[in-house]
Formats: sequence, structure tokens, C-alpha cells
Amino acid sequence: MKKIINRPEDVVTEALQGMAAAYPGQVTVHFAPDFIQRAGGPVPGKVALVSGGGSGHEPLHAGFVGLGMLDAAVPGAVFTSPTPDQIQAATQAVDAGAGVLHIVKNYTGDTLNFEMAADLARADGIDVEAVLINDDVAVQDSLYTAGRRGTGVALIAEKIAGAAAEQLRPLAEVAGICRRVNARGRSMGIALSSCTVPQAGRPTFELGEDEMEVGVGIHGEPGRRRMKLATAAGITAMLLEPILDDLPFLAGDRVLALVNGLGGTPLMELYVVYNELAKLCAARGLTIVRNLIGTYMTSLEMAGCTITLVKMDDELIALWDAPVQTPALRWGI
Amino acid sequence: MKKIINRPEDVVTEALQGMAAAYPGQVTVHFAPDFIQRAGGPVPGKVALVSGGGSGHEPLHAGFVGLGMLDAAVPGAVFTSPTPDQIQAATQAVDAGAGVLHIVKNYTGDTLNFEMAADLARADGIDVEAVLINDDVAVQDSLYTAGRRGTGVALIAEKIAGAAAEQLRPLAEVAGICRRVNARGRSMGIALSSCTVPQAGRPTFELGEDEMEVGVGIHGEPGRRRMKLATAAGITAMLLEPILDDLPFLAGDRVLALVNGLGGTPLMELYVVYNELAKLCAARGLTIVRNLIGTYMTSLEMAGCTITLVKMDDELIALWDAPVQTPALRWGI
Repeated sequence: MKKIINRPEDVVTEALQGMAAAYPGQVTVHFAPDFIQRAGGPVPGKVALVSGGGSGHEPLHAGFVGLGMLDAAVPGAVFTSPTPDQIQAATQAVDAGAGVLHIVKNYTGDTLNFEMAADLARADGIDVEAVLINDDVAVQDSLYTAGRRGTGVALIAEKIAGAAAEQLRPLAEVAGICRRVNARGRSMGIALSSCTVPQAGRPTFELGEDEMEVGVGIHGEPGRRRMKLATAAGITAMLLEPILDDLPFLAGDRVLALVNGLGGTPLMELYVVYNELAKLCAARGLTIVRNLIGTYMTSLEMAGCTITLVKMDDELIALWDAPVQTPALRWGI
Repeated sequence: MKKIINRPEDVVTEALQGMAAAYPGQVTVHFAPDFIQRAGGPVPGKVALVSGGGSGHEPLHAGFVGLGMLDAAVPGAVFTSPTPDQIQAATQAVDAGAGVLHIVKNYTGDTLNFEMAADLARADGIDVEAVLINDDVAVQDSLYTAGRRGTGVALIAEKIAGAAAEQLRPLAEVAGICRRVNARGRSMGIALSSCTVPQAGRPTFELGEDEMEVGVGIHGEPGRRRMKLATAAGITAMLLEPILDDLPFLAGDRVLALVNGLGGTPLMELYVVYNELAKLCAARGLTIVRNLIGTYMTSLEMAGCTITLVKMDDELIALWDAPVQTPALRWGI
């Protein structure tokens, strides 16, 4: 295992300390229980957004805390769900009386722990709604998941629902917009290499020198099939076709396209994938009205990428374009 | 070799096509000769900034084209200098009559080809100044370089000089600010793995399972020494001490700190490095007034990182904070 870390058991804490040192004006980092909060505390009248999950997917979610996006992110150990008391502490810290929206990627540990935390928060008189993100079309059930896994739509939902919350819309409306993004979003990913969880010290799975895992999960969960490495054109088609057919996306639809690197894939390759994606979308009559290309949701140093499409409308586009100021996503400010 | 590409010989062109598809309102991509130009053409009265170099370092430089930064970037083949005719074409395309600043990382091929292009452009009546970036303290001469290599200071100089140009300052002044950034900036890097140039098909160099290359260049050039993998604390000290001692940076100095991933290192590890860096700088009496943490200048999928410090003053800070709108760096807009 080759990583720039100190003791494997300290990596999450030290990364959070690094974020605290780097962004003192933007986020406040709490320890024991760990969570990252938007600086300045709760915003009066605003619904607060909380997301979280295992660490190792940075910048997701901690990098998306700030104006126009999350009020708090709750990081678990690497690839491990945060605990209910962590989530509860974050929920209490961000509540401004207008309620709290939990945005939860669909992994069994995450859903259970967010549900327990929501119950605890409700017992404290906090209005909590939860939206489950389950956009990954690759497989129905998986290693850590009943139903579909939650992947790239998480950050798009965080951005769009975060903009709605910033407009001081009520909880039911913010939750409704978040559910709409999830309902209209689909994703699929591919891995060219495994990744190594620091405390495990060995690769999560093994892939042959010429193999790729099509439909991989962001913890290295098996996908649809393992096959010989294909070209960028072949890979893009293999990811995009199941996405398009599932919703389905139809000619005339306007979409947001996310081409996301899983950690070890260079930006140059993501641009090659986007080039193929743009051609395939054009051939199907889809208009890509917004895009995001880069490394936003990772599996540590895994080589590979995910593609996410969300069917947009005027309201979703306006919310996407609204100002955001977080460590990892920033515009309009 | 595991990459998401089509034919290795097409990867640069297809990545540029992907950028053209992704950012039509922000950049215009020209082919044969290849260069990426800020959309909208030359800005009347503004000094134009041109940089470039081998591909494989994305987002450097193509991702930094736009308002407040570069007017054009000139990409060569992977790890190969752009040709004089490419640079000349970009220089002609961006000139608005106020002159053109070439920002050139110090590699022998780059400096020669930028010099030839500058001569050709001057023969066409364009006022060209060049600033050489040579911030890497690791080694005096290297595989492709006489003198010190140019690394992380390049993008900081592009941002700061770009802001000065946006204020319609004259060429001599913009060039002077760019030289000041270079004179006050120092960098050093480390590699935990090699990278593979697509057309070579095999790793540029070999590193043992437990080894790292201290002082590596961004094309995999040898550094100061090869040694056993150290902790994040040890690595950060090994990179920072030579940087601090070289300028030297002294107690009371205000610095901009860039912790840059070389392509295959997760953001989580960069935050761990930043945590160590912040502690070491505090112990030396340095104040980090601005920071940038992420993957901004890469060596394809190399695992490793670079640290850059620039000694700041009020003017440089204001120019750093000025609005920028490029594919890879955006704020204030």
C-alpha cells in the first residue's frame, strides 16, 4: 500500500484537520462526533441540508459544504457509514427551526443510521425529511445495498436542493425538488483498477492486467460484468446506453451530464469520455445544457469513471446555475 | 497500460474535442495547429497571456484559459513541447495590439520553441515578452532542463498576471508581476508511482513497492533521491524544508500554499499533507494567507504531490482574489 498518510487509523481525522486549517472562513469542523458544518452556523429561516457517508469519496460530501449546497456533511470511517449520533449531532447543529433535509445515498448502513438519527432528531422536535439517492442503474442489489446504489446524482441533488433551500423555500418543497432530481437522474460507472482502504492495506478487489469492471460501485462492489478493457468509445457507450434506456431519456430532452473521475483517472481521459458522450447524446437527440467534468466523487485512488445524466427543466437549470461557494464547487461568488 | 482512450495517437486531439464540446461559451479550440483560446477573441486594450507545454498535465494549461487568466494555451503531444508554429498561431490569434506575454515553464524544448515563436511574432509586429518559470528547488539540472524546472508556480503566475492584464495594465507591468511571482515562488514534488505515456505504453520509470522519488519532475524526471516510503509528516517536511530554506521564507512572511496532486493521489491524502504543512508553517512563523488544494498540475495518473509556496504581498493577494472564470479555476463570477 502506497499512500501519503501517517497511521492508517488517523487518516480521516487528519484529513478533517487539514480541511479545518484550509477553510476556516468557509467551514467549521467538529470532532467526536465528526462533522463539517457551514461556517457561521444555522441560517435563520433556511431549511438545512445534511448529507454524509463513508470517507474516501472526497470531495463528496465534505467538499460540498457551504453557501448554496450542504449545511453539514457527516463523514464515517473510510467506506463505512457515519454513526447515528454523528448524524444527529450534525442535524441539531444546523437546524434553524425550518427543518432539516437528509440526503442519503442508498447503502444499507447509511439508510439505517440516517433513519435512526432522524428519529432521534424528531424526538428533539426537529422536522426532518429524508431523500434516498438511488441512481446507479448497474445492478438492482449489491454488496452493501438493497435496491439501487446512490452515486453521482447525490452531488447534483445537493447542489440543486441547496439552491432551493437558499431561496428559503419550505422543507416539503426542498425535499420535493431533491426527489425530482433523483427521479430524473441515472448513473453508471466503470473501474480499471481497484483501490486500497488504508486500514485494510490491500486492494479491495483484484482486476486482471487487461480487465475492467463494468457497473462497479464506489466501494469496489461488483458490477454487471468483468470484461477485457475496451476503447473510450466502447466504454462510454456501455455506460451511457443503460442510463438512456432506463429512465428513459428521449429525443428533445435537456440533460445535465456529469463525467466523474473515480480518483486515479486523469482529466485528459475524462475529456475523451466527454467527447464520446457528447456525440452519442447528439445522435440520440439529447441536448446537454449543463456539464461537470472532473473528480467529484471518488473511490480513493481507483482508476475509472462514472457517467451521470439528469433530465433538466427550467427550474432545475436555474437552481443549478445559482451561486455556490464550497471548497470543491464554486461559482457566482 | 490501462487507460480510457481510443488510439493512443489520438488522445490529445480527442481530449481537445471534448473540451470544445464541454465549454463552447468559454473557450474556442483550434486544430492544426492546436491551441485553446478564450472565447470572444482578443480583448481590446488588454495584454494577452499565452502559456503551454506538453499535454498530460491537465488541467494545466488548457483548463486555465478564460477571463482573468490565460488568453490561450498551446498543448503539445503528451510530455512534448508544442511547436513554434502552434505558439505563433496562438500569439497572433490573441494579440489585441497591447502585446502578448508568454509564460514558459523551464524545459529546454519549451523555452526554445517559445523563443522561436516570439521571434516570429515580433517579425509580424507583435510586442512579445516572455517570463520563464523555474520554481522547482529539487535539482539544478534535469533530464529535459538546464537550470531549475518550472512547476506549480506556473498556474499561480498565470492567475496573478492574468488578473493584472484584466486591469489593462501595460505589458511591461504584467510581465514584471509575473516575474515577481516566479521570483517569490518555490516548489518541490514527490512521486509514489510512475505514469505511462499513452504512445509509450509502459511506465516512464520504475519504483519499488516501498519506494518514493523525492524531488521528482512532472514528467517523471529523477529527483534528489529515491528512498523508502515515509509518513505524510515526513514527506511534507522533506518537501517543505528545501522550499523554505531556498528563498528563504522567513518568520512573518505571508504565503500562498498550493498542495497539488499529481493525478493518482486522492484529495483525502492532500488534506492530510495540508494539515502537516499548516503545522510546519505555523512553527516557522509563516502565515498562509491563501491556499489551493487539489489536482491542478498533473503527470497523467502519477501518485504523488507537489508543494508550492509563494511569498505574497497586498498587491499579489488582491490579484489572486480577483475574479477568474476558466474550466478549472473559477471564483468571483
